[in-house]
Amino acid sequence: MDAELVGYLAAVLTTSSFLPQALKTLRTRDVSGISLSMYCLFVSGVLLWLVYGVMRQAWPIIIANAITAVLAGSVLVLKLRHR
Amino acid sequence: MDAELVGYLAAVLTTSSFLPQALKTLRTRDVSGISLSMYCLFVSGVLLWLVYGVMRQAWPIIIANAITAVLAGSVLVLKLRHR
Repeated sequence: MDAELVGYLAAVLTTSSFLPQALKTLRTRDVSGISLSMYCLFVSGVLLWLVYGVMRQAWPIIIANAITAVLAGSVLVLKLRHR
Repeated sequence: MDAELVGYLAAVLTTSSFLPQALKTLRTRDVSGISLSMYCLFVSGVLLWLVYGVMRQAWPIIIANAITAVLAGSVLVLKLRHR
């Protein structure tokens, strides 16, 4: 398996992983166990990865981090609303 | 600010973000709101990023994802133990 394929698979997994968390939090509003500092740090980091992708004109990095920012961002908003 | 610096800052933020979640989960054992599928997908993805980093001999990717694997992996283990 070549490195590019491994990279794309890794990006799909880490990006899509926030979908089940966003859906679970939307459904249950159970945010007590979720760390606010984690999602503040993580969403800031993902937005910086987005800036990095734009600076490098690297579309895979732009697309993966735009999706992750929306999904992780929604968990952050739900955490702020229901804590 | 050059792209490399933005990339390193993004890596530090996304990597370190799992530390507060791991500490909170260790302290509270409150895992009901944490999505098991998220952490299964995310840890698998991070391990693939580690493989990608080794294939590319890219030490920043290796180090960031090794740390993230340990931190996110510990949340996954705690979720499996206390769900």
